[in-house]
Amino acid sequence: MNIFECVSPLDFRYYLQSDELQELLGDYVTERARVRSEAMVEAATVRVLARRGICSEQVAEEVARAAQEIDPAEVAEEEGRIHHNIRALVNTIKQHVSDEAKPYIHFALTSFDVIDTATAWRFKQAAHNAILPTLLRLEQTLIELARREADVLQIGRTHGQHAEPITFGFAIAEYVSRLGGRIEAIRSAADNLRGKISGAVGAYNAISLMIDDPEQFERELLAELDLEPSPYSTQIVEAEFVADFIHALISAFGVLANLADDMRHLQRTEISEVAEAFEAEQVGSSTMPHKRNPWNFENIKSMWKQFMPRMVTVYADQISEHQRDLSNSASQRFLPEIIVGLMNSALRMNRIMSRLVTDEERMRENLAITEGMIAAEPLYILLAAHGHPDAHEAVRKLTLEAQRSGRSLGELVVEDEELAPYLEQFTQEHRAILAEPARYTGIAAAKARGVCDLWAERLGLG
Amino acid sequence: MNIFECVSPLDFRYYLQSDELQELLGDYVTERARVRSEAMVEAATVRVLARRGICSEQVAEEVARAAQEIDPAEVAEEEGRIHHNIRALVNTIKQHVSDEAKPYIHFALTSFDVIDTATAWRFKQAAHNAILPTLLRLEQTLIELARREADVLQIGRTHGQHAEPITFGFAIAEYVSRLGGRIEAIRSAADNLRGKISGAVGAYNAISLMIDDPEQFERELLAELDLEPSPYSTQIVEAEFVADFIHALISAFGVLANLADDMRHLQRTEISEVAEAFEAEQVGSSTMPHKRNPWNFENIKSMWKQFMPRMVTVYADQISEHQRDLSNSASQRFLPEIIVGLMNSALRMNRIMSRLVTDEERMRENLAITEGMIAAEPLYILLAAHGHPDAHEAVRKLTLEAQRSGRSLGELVVEDEELAPYLEQFTQEHRAILAEPARYTGIAAAKARGVCDLWAERLGLG
Amino acid sequence: MNIFECVSPLDFRYYLQSDELQELLGDYVTERARVRSEAMVEAATVRVLARRGICSEQVAEEVARAAQEIDPAEVAEEEGRIHHNIRALVNTIKQHVSDEAKPYIHFALTSFDVIDTATAWRFKQAAHNAILPTLLRLEQTLIELARREADVLQIGRTHGQHAEPITFGFAIAEYVSRLGGRIEAIRSAADNLRGKISGAVGAYNAISLMIDDPEQFERELLAELDLEPSPYSTQIVEAEFVADFIHALISAFGVLANLADDMRHLQRTEISEVAEAFEAEQVGSSTMPHKRNPWNFENIKSMWKQFMPRMVTVYADQISEHQRDLSNSASQRFLPEIIVGLMNSALRMNRIMSRLVTDEERMRENLAITEGMIAAEPLYILLAAHGHPDAHEAVRKLTLEAQRSGRSLGELVVEDEELAPYLEQFTQEHRAILAEPARYTGIAAAKARGVCDLWAERLGLG
Amino acid sequence: MNIFECVSPLDFRYYLQSDELQELLGDYVTERARVRSEAMVEAATVRVLARRGICSEQVAEEVARAAQEIDPAEVAEEEGRIHHNIRALVNTIKQHVSDEAKPYIHFALTSFDVIDTATAWRFKQAAHNAILPTLLRLEQTLIELARREADVLQIGRTHGQHAEPITFGFAIAEYVSRLGGRIEAIRSAADNLRGKISGAVGAYNAISLMIDDPEQFERELLAELDLEPSPYSTQIVEAEFVADFIHALISAFGVLANLADDMRHLQRTEISEVAEAFEAEQVGSSTMPHKRNPWNFENIKSMWKQFMPRMVTVYADQISEHQRDLSNSASQRFLPEIIVGLMNSALRMNRIMSRLVTDEERMRENLAITEGMIAAEPLYILLAAHGHPDAHEAVRKLTLEAQRSGRSLGELVVEDEELAPYLEQFTQEHRAILAEPARYTGIAAAKARGVCDLWAERLGLG
Repeated sequence: MNIFECVSPLDFRYYLQSDELQELLGDYVTERARVRSEAMVEAATVRVLARRGICSEQVAEEVARAAQEIDPAEVAEEEGRIHHNIRALVNTIKQHVSDEAKPYIHFALTSFDVIDTATAWRFKQAAHNAILPTLLRLEQTLIELARREADVLQIGRTHGQHAEPITFGFAIAEYVSRLGGRIEAIRSAADNLRGKISGAVGAYNAISLMIDDPEQFERELLAELDLEPSPYSTQIVEAEFVADFIHALISAFGVLANLADDMRHLQRTEISEVAEAFEAEQVGSSTMPHKRNPWNFENIKSMWKQFMPRMVTVYADQISEHQRDLSNSASQRFLPEIIVGLMNSALRMNRIMSRLVTDEERMRENLAITEGMIAAEPLYILLAAHGHPDAHEAVRKLTLEAQRSGRSLGELVVEDEELAPYLEQFTQEHRAILAEPARYTGIAAAKARGVCDLWAERLGLG
Repeated sequence: MNIFECVSPLDFRYYLQSDELQELLGDYVTERARVRSEAMVEAATVRVLARRGICSEQVAEEVARAAQEIDPAEVAEEEGRIHHNIRALVNTIKQHVSDEAKPYIHFALTSFDVIDTATAWRFKQAAHNAILPTLLRLEQTLIELARREADVLQIGRTHGQHAEPITFGFAIAEYVSRLGGRIEAIRSAADNLRGKISGAVGAYNAISLMIDDPEQFERELLAELDLEPSPYSTQIVEAEFVADFIHALISAFGVLANLADDMRHLQRTEISEVAEAFEAEQVGSSTMPHKRNPWNFENIKSMWKQFMPRMVTVYADQISEHQRDLSNSASQRFLPEIIVGLMNSALRMNRIMSRLVTDEERMRENLAITEGMIAAEPLYILLAAHGHPDAHEAVRKLTLEAQRSGRSLGELVVEDEELAPYLEQFTQEHRAILAEPARYTGIAAAKARGVCDLWAERLGLG
Repeated sequence: MNIFECVSPLDFRYYLQSDELQELLGDYVTERARVRSEAMVEAATVRVLARRGICSEQVAEEVARAAQEIDPAEVAEEEGRIHHNIRALVNTIKQHVSDEAKPYIHFALTSFDVIDTATAWRFKQAAHNAILPTLLRLEQTLIELARREADVLQIGRTHGQHAEPITFGFAIAEYVSRLGGRIEAIRSAADNLRGKISGAVGAYNAISLMIDDPEQFERELLAELDLEPSPYSTQIVEAEFVADFIHALISAFGVLANLADDMRHLQRTEISEVAEAFEAEQVGSSTMPHKRNPWNFENIKSMWKQFMPRMVTVYADQISEHQRDLSNSASQRFLPEIIVGLMNSALRMNRIMSRLVTDEERMRENLAITEGMIAAEPLYILLAAHGHPDAHEAVRKLTLEAQRSGRSLGELVVEDEELAPYLEQFTQEHRAILAEPARYTGIAAAKARGVCDLWAERLGLG
Repeated sequence: MNIFECVSPLDFRYYLQSDELQELLGDYVTERARVRSEAMVEAATVRVLARRGICSEQVAEEVARAAQEIDPAEVAEEEGRIHHNIRALVNTIKQHVSDEAKPYIHFALTSFDVIDTATAWRFKQAAHNAILPTLLRLEQTLIELARREADVLQIGRTHGQHAEPITFGFAIAEYVSRLGGRIEAIRSAADNLRGKISGAVGAYNAISLMIDDPEQFERELLAELDLEPSPYSTQIVEAEFVADFIHALISAFGVLANLADDMRHLQRTEISEVAEAFEAEQVGSSTMPHKRNPWNFENIKSMWKQFMPRMVTVYADQISEHQRDLSNSASQRFLPEIIVGLMNSALRMNRIMSRLVTDEERMRENLAITEGMIAAEPLYILLAAHGHPDAHEAVRKLTLEAQRSGRSLGELVVEDEELAPYLEQFTQEHRAILAEPARYTGIAAAKARGVCDLWAERLGLG
């Protein structure tokens, strides 16, 4: 097979060309992983059957070995013949075991006992072994950046307009906090993924033929896979556990997309406060050799646009008629793609943020553009604090005057006779802020550090 | 104003024509509620300022009184003049207080300190005072129904095809469990909604002019409204708290939609196992007077189709540039509509489920259609359990024969010489199930009761 | 009724507070409009029945009068009694006519003959009388702006980075063209909206009792309302006609959102090439009196985020079981909201674009930032044109040198000995472009004018 | 490479395991197809340059040959080195040509001249060579089925309830008509896909250096690829052409999904009017050997749930800042997946519909269930036609009596003294319908045939 015959960019471009992604995710998101994990559920079942004395320990060992041996290609070939994927898996395993073991494979199970349980296992493992470690590395990178830049002055922007001064570390701390929150959300949703071993309609009809405590049997079997059962199941696990997990992923993706947007705007030619590091041989534009585009940040935003709407599929898949219809089957096969999309963006984000080029001087210059106006807010607050009855309006008019005349608010205010009685009461520190509004950063630096400390502790980072 | 001049069906049809919805939600979802709750934040601010000695207690009381007095119409009029909704609110409150109090209104706040905090307050209150009680009433209704019908035999259906027998109570227990889970999810997300009092760019720039512990000030102020602060904020609270809350609502809506679909399919003419109760004067069809349509269930499904996709808006609103852009402002004004949509459907669902007409006899008749085939699964399990090496295939062929001949599996199996050695080993109980497959319900009834007990206890219901 | 008791921002904020919107849309998007247009279908039916001799002309006149008289409140009251909206309409009309006329009201119709036909009528009329005229006014505004600014130099930006020079009129012409295309798409989809008069399951069962040519009857009746029939219908019109119409609206909304984004970025403090006009009394920020936010552009982007995802509802509503289920009924009641949302944004856009403040000097200054680098592209093209085998790479290295040294490409290139043989062959004009890269605007100005002329002609504008 | 290492089900399951899909779509949807078609644009450019005398014919031929020779793997390798996909393509082509030809490759083009033009070419070709032929085959299948079943009696269903009789051919004709409409929509949108050759910011900056009529040059070049230019372009084509095309595909998918839903509900055990044909060796359920599930129909519904929400991505991609940002690049790479998803479902649908098992007798039996009630509508129409002032109410009460007593409406009506005077006036034919309501099918059969004829003619089918 030639990867250029693939139709999914995830395959031919993002995943199959990335050793890192394949190493991290190969055991959880590929078709191979699906088959293997389903075989693992089959093996676990026989193991518990043996423990219950329904079959021998030797049968269980035989099946466990077979489950590890089978090849996805064998299963696919058998499916081509009989058009049923789990029955194909079962038949394939049977071909690897003795006649004695055959009857116990898939014993009293329905396909979705295997499929839903295996999916829960793969998603939970992917979360713990790939997604969370990757996001934690990114979180660490952001924490380091926020701490490093905690005191670097930057103008805060609302509506794309200069507002009040902050520090760049404070701006980055936003993402330390939001990503930290999503890491906790993903962990919690992953740990809450559930399996099921309750048969074709969820009433444990088949297994009840053989044992008296089918719910206990289910718990025992799922415990082999580090899972708990859905409190109720039909043919399938309650849909909300997966929905919560995907929501956690998609909303984490939104945080990355927002960070990407912030960075690419800060990289605008006119702003130029940050830049993606560029490799020596890298081409910025096929026709404009001087361009340095924020293409990694753009890529993250773009991937978010591709994957975010897929939550609609997840919500639509909550609906399954009666003890289930199959109309969530093909659609859910695509769920691992969301993991790959998110991971691709998270790894990329970590790569660029850990080498982010920042320009402290430029930040200072940009702030200078509106330094004459920034004092408007503290001035109005202080006037109000000293009893001016309509401080906002007074200052609004003063800013209009400043804009008209091109003079700074600081200059105009000291000439204003009406305001003089209030100004006299201002403290030394307050006058200093009005004179040098860049000092008006509130607790930006301390907050940046505090947020980093908080999340480093909550997440067990350095 | 005439409601028929409205353009939103929520207004002219669903909400404004329902006393129940208005009573439950009026204080949380209307424009009046928005203005009132924002005034409440303004009043709370002055209360804490007074406690800190920045203004007098009397000023705080004056503002508190004014905040309760102001009318949304006054604010709207002022906004028409100055084109800024929070400044309009502030100006309006000022008109209701003495000159001494004026400076302390909105002191050191930014608009979104007020807006985001008031929104968190309204959503949290709506959850606790309207959404959760309503869903709990529905949960209670479902529990009662599941318990009542716990032993009523019904055929389980997968792919719309008869599968294995269950009980109707077991089928309803699915929704007891899934709705129970969503109730917990909504409660948890609602309790995690956050406010913020950190100023225009989130660095506490303004308030830091006056006090040394702005984060403590924020905590104190939000505690007045039973809220906690966002761990970090820009001009706005981290978007994920609201996203989690809306996800909880939307995914709860999905559970209602699934239940609605199940019920309307069970009401199909050919199935007729359940029916919406009909009022004496009610018209089923404008042209087919005999029709009894599941229109309430259809309405719930339809409302879900209207509101589910709005999660896309919520995800898009996670992205706000730098210390925020305003492009999430108008879109978030529509969020309360999701609450109204869900509540409309939840109340409707409770109304119809609490009077659901069920037809036990018809359920029995429907099950009888395939009773001759149902034994396939237990037969195959038992053959396998007694060592048949290819039980599934043997039974599959037998079912083909049963379909061809029109005879029941039970009859055919006793005539099959190849299977005889296995059948001899079956227990009395197993033979009884093969002879009367309707007994093959696993632990359906017990599971139904168990699920009801579990959720009744977890949710504090009867 | 008090508008502040409404829950939809469309009602209490956007539509009911706008005389302009109400005047333009009142007859098409309100509940009143729905009732009136449905009564109009009922009247048209009796008119055609009379023409066929099934009832008298006098009956038809009586019904026509009654259809105009009835009040939405009467219908709502009757619906409260019988729980069926069209039967309520029919009963109400009956109360306004003589006994002789009563039997012919809703004669042989099914509810959705009335509802779907009336909806098609309202949407088509709204398109021709409100949406298209409004978008055409906006198109005219954009054409005027593009023509006025056709020669005003601006740097073209890709990836937020300076690319090659264009003119501001050329940038605006993008929206002339894209909006022009959407105007045609809306017109075409609106003219293709269809009605139906084919009865409860679409087979003309009822009307066939009385007449021999039911499809001709349908065509005749719909022609009264300037509509054509769906080529096939069940209880409802084929869903794709409305889907195409809403797609046209939503994709037009996307064009407005993109224009809004462009403008708000050009209004960034560091760029400041354009600005929303501000009113004298207007407040920019509740706490930062100096702010001039692009809040109208932000509002448009935000409204797009609210309405765009609703296309998902439209697609979901394509699915209706058999001869229809009702699960598209409530959801489709919300469709007029999309019209209101789009119109609100279109009117707003016209308002701000027709008073857009542009800063030609600032555009020139911004372009100057990278003027030293812009020559990279023409230089590489010309080198290639004169046979340089690896022009792109040669220029890429030169730009790295330019960035390192802070010197302009124009300077460096004349010093480069390797390139000298090629430069000698450059024409006078080409050398002029390299010396003054701001001249490198291609056919920007002409294209701007050409696009304006093209669309003015296609759309019949000035 | 092993397909089981892929992560996209499209690759490992649906596309790469289907010779049919690969044959139909390989040249349009794979990564190989992307590279090839982009090389084709590069070759076409040089061809037109030669025609203009900018380079020699021999150079053009050399490049054309090179464009056909290059291997996607070469390009991928070069991209790995320089991180720019189009520059990698250009470099690769250069390695295949003489030094003389090198300068003219990608001459005056920007990457997206190539990418957008190649995409338009691939989508248009895919439409004409794969999508439309496949949908036309399905349309032909549906026409044949509708004609064959035109007279087969079936009960019409609204709200899942029996309504009035139709024929099964009439029910299928719905999809003949809706699919016919979508075929026209796809064709029209495909033919309207546009290319662009206007350079980095769309102002033809580069090419204007060399030629005087760049718009004519663009038209000429695109004509080589059977495309027309976007009326305006920035770095990219106006987004709406692709949006219209994808809308046409997605809305066609919705029609398939609705047909799939109808069929799977008709296959419900209790209804059993149709069935998917089953292969001899096929396994219906891993645990219930007797099951015959409508899994193909379910698969189509499920694929629709996966792909429908992706329209949100398309709408989001309408927004690109200024002369474009790259945030639509990765997301648009996924667009061909939508084609593959739709084609997979269309081929599947054709397969099952062309072998659909129908059960005429069962349709008759189902209709019989409510035959006693069906007369309600014609009775009420006829009473009204003969002047009964409140026919609907009279019949509604009669149906309640029929339900209570278990007797048919036909019997009850002749005993009703109040109605006698009206009944006397009924024609023979009308009485026959009341006596045998199965005759009450309106023009179902004729309409089915008429719709088939209409679409066969419009689409040039048999």
